[in-house]
Amino acid sequence: MKTFNLRLYLVTDEACLRYANLLDAVEEALQAGVTLVQYRDKKGLGKEMLQKAVALRILCHRYHIPLIVNDRLDVALLSGADGVHLGQDDLPVEEARRLTGPDFIIGATAHNVQEALAAQAAGADYLGCGAVFATETKHDTVPLGLEGLRAIRKAVHIPIAGIAGVTAKNYRQVLATGADGAAVVSAILGTEDITTAVKAFLEVK
Amino acid sequence: MKTFNLRLYLVTDEACLRYANLLDAVEEALQAGVTLVQYRDKKGLGKEMLQKAVALRILCHRYHIPLIVNDRLDVALLSGADGVHLGQDDLPVEEARRLTGPDFIIGATAHNVQEALAAQAAGADYLGCGAVFATETKHDTVPLGLEGLRAIRKAVHIPIAGIAGVTAKNYRQVLATGADGAAVVSAILGTEDITTAVKAFLEVK
Repeated sequence: MKTFNLRLYLVTDEACLRYANLLDAVEEALQAGVTLVQYRDKKGLGKEMLQKAVALRILCHRYHIPLIVNDRLDVALLSGADGVHLGQDDLPVEEARRLTGPDFIIGATAHNVQEALAAQAAGADYLGCGAVFATETKHDTVPLGLEGLRAIRKAVHIPIAGIAGVTAKNYRQVLATGADGAAVVSAILGTEDITTAVKAFLEVK
Repeated sequence: MKTFNLRLYLVTDEACLRYANLLDAVEEALQAGVTLVQYRDKKGLGKEMLQKAVALRILCHRYHIPLIVNDRLDVALLSGADGVHLGQDDLPVEEARRLTGPDFIIGATAHNVQEALAAQAAGADYLGCGAVFATETKHDTVPLGLEGLRAIRKAVHIPIAGIAGVTAKNYRQVLATGADGAAVVSAILGTEDITTAVKAFLEVK
């Protein structure tokens, strides 16, 4: 059975990391309470990505948290990760499902209601929806905004997370749209104190 | 059963293509007699790569020639390609095999005898060995040379192809090492007359 919680979904990006080591940073975030982890490495090569994904899967599973791998379905499957996250330029959801069991989590990116409905129809298990706010780590999207996030929430029944520019300060607004949570990169990994950063999110009700 | 012939192994690289369209270029090369095709697109995104791989697989199979996909095992499997080619920085051969049947072709890159023996032991079905000559399309390798290619030929029993800088003029030297053939990029796709380029190779005995 697929069990995952989008409430505070940590997405890795080594470029914004202030800690010396990705695994140490993710472990601190897990201890502090992130609810899901995605390993994202857009420039990664297969061999190194597989090694890191295996290390992250072992770490995440010690905290009973699923690991999702961005883009590379082959790395996701071989690493023993729990799922894959597919952007609009990545493998189509319905194609990816042909290589996975039904219990494998497939997440998709949606920039608008149309993409959200299409991904749900294709069998996506959750949606990362954005860009909710302006951000430095993603430049490829037309901003969706909080209103757009609310519109997607009304249109689909699968869990959704807001992504891009979400901080502890605007997290309440994201949750107020009805979204199940937020995917966060730099507001956690780009800080010098990950525990404090995660706690600041989790205190928001 | 795995049947493939490394004699004249066309590797795609759209950056060096002089034809307007990759499929047209590959079809002309197939008509002229290349014996194996690899779809390589190091900067490709999953969705587009899958579309191109499917189109190339349909094309190659019309000519009864197998299609190999570079690096992306997920794209290779979903496209119905016959195999995957894995460089030293890509997924390890023995890991990739866990996702494929025994009849799926797995090729590996070897830069020296040690890598060649390791890839063979890991279950590779063939080796691309190089760099045989200096080339513009690959800068990441210490040249192997013809002597190195001959040393690999003596060390392993699986089929091997020389790669990098092979032209119709030096192709005879490559075959004289005992290699089964050569993998060629720009000496076919970088020309303005692919039929003539392929025929020039095939006339070499």
